[in-house]
Amino acid sequence: MAPADALKRLHERLAPLDRAERISASRALGRVLAEDLLAPHDLPDFPRSTMDGFAVRAADTFGASEALPAYLTVVGEVAMGTAAAVQVRSAEAARIATGGMLPPGADAVVMVELTQDVDERTVEVLRPVAPGENVIQVGEDIRRGSAVLPRGHTLRAQDLGGLASLGIVEITVAPRLSVGIISGGDEIVAPDATPSPGQIRDINTSTLAALVEQAGHVPVPLGIVPDRYDALAEAARRGFTATDVLILSAGSSVSTRDMTAEVIASLGTPGVLVHGVSLRPGKPTVLAVADGKPIFGLPGNPVSCMVTFDLFVTPTLAYLTGAGRPARRTTAARLAHGIASAAGREDYVQVRLEERDGERWAVPVFGKSNLIYTLVHADGMVKVELDDGGLPEGAIVPVVLF
Amino acid sequence: MAPADALKRLHERLAPLDRAERISASRALGRVLAEDLLAPHDLPDFPRSTMDGFAVRAADTFGASEALPAYLTVVGEVAMGTAAAVQVRSAEAARIATGGMLPPGADAVVMVELTQDVDERTVEVLRPVAPGENVIQVGEDIRRGSAVLPRGHTLRAQDLGGLASLGIVEITVAPRLSVGIISGGDEIVAPDATPSPGQIRDINTSTLAALVEQAGHVPVPLGIVPDRYDALAEAARRGFTATDVLILSAGSSVSTRDMTAEVIASLGTPGVLVHGVSLRPGKPTVLAVADGKPIFGLPGNPVSCMVTFDLFVTPTLAYLTGAGRPARRTTAARLAHGIASAAGREDYVQVRLEERDGERWAVPVFGKSNLIYTLVHADGMVKVELDDGGLPEGAIVPVVLF
Repeated sequence: MAPADALKRLHERLAPLDRAERISASRALGRVLAEDLLAPHDLPDFPRSTMDGFAVRAADTFGASEALPAYLTVVGEVAMGTAAAVQVRSAEAARIATGGMLPPGADAVVMVELTQDVDERTVEVLRPVAPGENVIQVGEDIRRGSAVLPRGHTLRAQDLGGLASLGIVEITVAPRLSVGIISGGDEIVAPDATPSPGQIRDINTSTLAALVEQAGHVPVPLGIVPDRYDALAEAARRGFTATDVLILSAGSSVSTRDMTAEVIASLGTPGVLVHGVSLRPGKPTVLAVADGKPIFGLPGNPVSCMVTFDLFVTPTLAYLTGAGRPARRTTAARLAHGIASAAGREDYVQVRLEERDGERWAVPVFGKSNLIYTLVHADGMVKVELDDGGLPEGAIVPVVLF
Repeated sequence: MAPADALKRLHERLAPLDRAERISASRALGRVLAEDLLAPHDLPDFPRSTMDGFAVRAADTFGASEALPAYLTVVGEVAMGTAAAVQVRSAEAARIATGGMLPPGADAVVMVELTQDVDERTVEVLRPVAPGENVIQVGEDIRRGSAVLPRGHTLRAQDLGGLASLGIVEITVAPRLSVGIISGGDEIVAPDATPSPGQIRDINTSTLAALVEQAGHVPVPLGIVPDRYDALAEAARRGFTATDVLILSAGSSVSTRDMTAEVIASLGTPGVLVHGVSLRPGKPTVLAVADGKPIFGLPGNPVSCMVTFDLFVTPTLAYLTGAGRPARRTTAARLAHGIASAAGREDYVQVRLEERDGERWAVPVFGKSNLIYTLVHADGMVKVELDDGGLPEGAIVPVVLF
């Protein structure tokens, strides 16, 4: 099954969560909006000057030039942050600074550089201004009742500025999901343990927890479980009950992979939806749903584990929160060696980026997919599409950056 | 002064911080390494099988074929996670699973699919294997004493997996910097206040705090300060003492900008290094150093504020931690309208991305730079280089994504 079809099959059996929480907008960076926000008032709700200069009636300046300036009587100054106290009538002007409130009667601002003081009460205007010139109109930034941001939007820095501008200081957002992580394998010990001969330290819990954190959710490491059905089933059952999403990073032998799939199948209905994907690395991936929660059986080797997280877990976390698929950082680069692939299979090849003669090259890191340092030494990965037999040396390819 | 020259002038008077902290590797995502890490041992430190099959002496399989298999005596099985107890001698084989420790005497693994069981004690090998085939050698992932990751590296998910694999559970990282943020302006009130006529809510503190957080550092909002020299100077002095980096988002009138520059100059030596940059929006930017700390006077309007943060503050935060300049997410798109620019000035134009007939278009959002919703409605920005007079409609341009 193609990766895109596998993901579709999974999402067909899942629905975005209907939980939400109310939080301070100041703590909402990266969170997903769970409500449609409308502007409670016009912004600005008074006309503002965008220049230092003079608030005028535009008609009074028509035809003005250096040779024949318009003479206006200065009737006062607009103080910043207050309602304009002065009224501008015909042939009058009021001093105003950038951000000041346009006084009643005025409909434009002449920038100070295009005026000349005659005396304290009189100013010459050397160029005409059009009505509305150098003014932000009421509602020009955003209009009362119009859409501020839609449900499902992931909040960025400027969005928080936009909310602040409208006095929206509390918002409803999708929850951060708790993601349980089980690492399976008789040969696996914790990173802080000293492995005996034949043992290795757990890599995937660290990588997966960081990927969950990076996606804006809460990793729940559930420990290392030996390759015994009852031990794995018990750990999975407990983790499944306690979290929103469960990931099992299974051993890499056929027997432990089959056992992992059986354990996943035991958690509820509809159970295993996908077992095996046309993908390298990552073929033995298991995608399942039990009682509305997704369960992922990811291959045990570190490279497959990361690739399949990216392809299946990341978009599913986004889907559950109602967000769009997150954009990845990519860069274009020229492929330094050809990549062979079988048609009918998606391949992901780790690459290192190098600058050569001012051009960016993607150099494939042809490490075995069970070596974590294949990933550590890579800057990103190149995808070979399902129907491509490979990519030729010298091709310009998009590189998804880590 | 060109933006790149302005940044260079600032960095010439700054040095990376010599503070560092020791933290758990499990909490180090996005942190910057402050030490060179070397591998404390070979990984793996025993030869591991990459297949389910039989550990053999490769020489015993040379010439084997389906017609003329090699017959080997099965002398035992390697249990996962233990030192291989069995010894493989000539014409012998031991069952082994993926990840198992290659037993003494064996130098290769035959995958199970290329064998056939004759009886409990005998297996047929149907293809030859080369010495080392299907085996990860000692140190093949990483060799004892070799560089794991260099000082200045920003830690990614897979890097944390790499550290875990070597038992590196505590590391020395650059500190998160505290970044003070002062918003200035007589017309500015807090987001949770109700503005009186002529007042607007503070936008920049929210945006700047989120940008600091996004860069991995700690925003310290210092409040809104009125446009009076003594008030601003006192707030700046207090903030400067309490934080590693100070940002003043000043008012936008000429007089408040000049006052902000004076306040910044009063904080210490060498003082203001740059006042005005060939940049739109963002021309009135002030870059300063006092007593080894950077101080930024950013323009008050929201678009300029964000553009100048990105150009000057982000790379300076990275520089202070010893990290490289962070890569931005970019995408290529076709420009929907031409963009005019003056040669000798860098322009940043906000764009919305649209898909049309399967192609990605960048549609300039030509809002005034004092409108926050210009940024909220944009997906990214397009840069017009210093020496370009503009960009033509239809050009393929890189879009820096927000």
